[in-house]
Amino acid sequence: MKIITVSREFGSGGREVGKRLADALGFKYYDKEIITEIAKQTNLHEEYINKTLENGLGFHFSFGTTLAGFSAVDQNAIDIMVAQRKIIKELAEKGDCVIVGRTSNVILKDYHPLNVFVYADMDSKVARCKARAKEEEKLTDKQYRKAIKKIDKGRAKYYSLLSSGKWGDKKEYDMLVNTTGMVIKDMIPALKEYAEAWFKTYEK
Amino acid sequence: MKIITVSREFGSGGREVGKRLADALGFKYYDKEIITEIAKQTNLHEEYINKTLENGLGFHFSFGTTLAGFSAVDQNAIDIMVAQRKIIKELAEKGDCVIVGRTSNVILKDYHPLNVFVYADMDSKVARCKARAKEEEKLTDKQYRKAIKKIDKGRAKYYSLLSSGKWGDKKEYDMLVNTTGMVIKDMIPALKEYAEAWFKTYEK
Repeated sequence: MKIITVSREFGSGGREVGKRLADALGFKYYDKEIITEIAKQTNLHEEYINKTLENGLGFHFSFGTTLAGFSAVDQNAIDIMVAQRKIIKELAEKGDCVIVGRTSNVILKDYHPLNVFVYADMDSKVARCKARAKEEEKLTDKQYRKAIKKIDKGRAKYYSLLSSGKWGDKKEYDMLVNTTGMVIKDMIPALKEYAEAWFKTYEK
Repeated sequence: MKIITVSREFGSGGREVGKRLADALGFKYYDKEIITEIAKQTNLHEEYINKTLENGLGFHFSFGTTLAGFSAVDQNAIDIMVAQRKIIKELAEKGDCVIVGRTSNVILKDYHPLNVFVYADMDSKVARCKARAKEEEKLTDKQYRKAIKKIDKGRAKYYSLLSSGKWGDKKEYDMLVNTTGMVIKDMIPALKEYAEAWFKTYEK
């Protein structure tokens, strides 16, 4: 089973890296499909699931509640986490794939995936967010910076629920690429070749 | 001018990455040549220079001395730093090259080099050190771990003298590769391709 996980800072183009890399390798690509599947299994709305995961479940766990004291909302967050873990494993079992985000590097540890982390400097992330936003949805640079920091803080928090490692710390990944100033399309042949070398090594 | 800097954790195989990458690209490769050149320009012994740089100049700067209070030893450390900076720039001016270590990513910032960081987990670094040591020079695992930590601490310290960034922090580099379990030779075609994509982007 050849699995690549792509973790990324918000706005760094990690999703594009994942999608293009999957296409180049002929691998399945999973991202939002996971949310859709969680929604099916938990009967919760996709948007609610997204928000819960984006907040790093912070809201639900921030009051030092014990298991016994969990409210209905907390229980939803746990259901989401449990469903997500199960679904990611099911998808991995289906065959070669690229999975973006969702702490899949932690969840799929036993499958020995190639774990990639994509990042960029703040200006470049703001520019990327801006470029892909619809005209009427554009924010100010300051607002983008704030939003990017908030989302990544949530990701880091969520990560620390599942791992003793630190989100974005190089120790957690096999390769980290800085997309600042890069054209992602042009990076793909090299990343594909790296992935092939990686799988070759681990198949030996 | 196409310049690649390779920074690395001790024992991660960064030097091999740098050498092989230079060969694959047809670039010059600089590593110990820099020490030899510093020795020439400062009239200091190569071994002394190496030790001074490896210790992150820690010994010389650890007493909170002011410029006026520098001893002869301190002055040597400064001479070494100044000479190193000058030599690295001179080498870069000569044409396409790979430079390993020596905070060259900081020193050559204006040349917009591709900055690579090579790392690995501790077991893998110990194994690599062991494999390359002569039979009579082999240490225990514990001794290797201690030596590796000490050398990298020196590198981090030296880095912080020249940069406000942190040695090994992904923000300081364009690509980080974890050599744990990898055969370095097999990684080179992908790294070469990545470098070519990088230079293509920045030449536009």
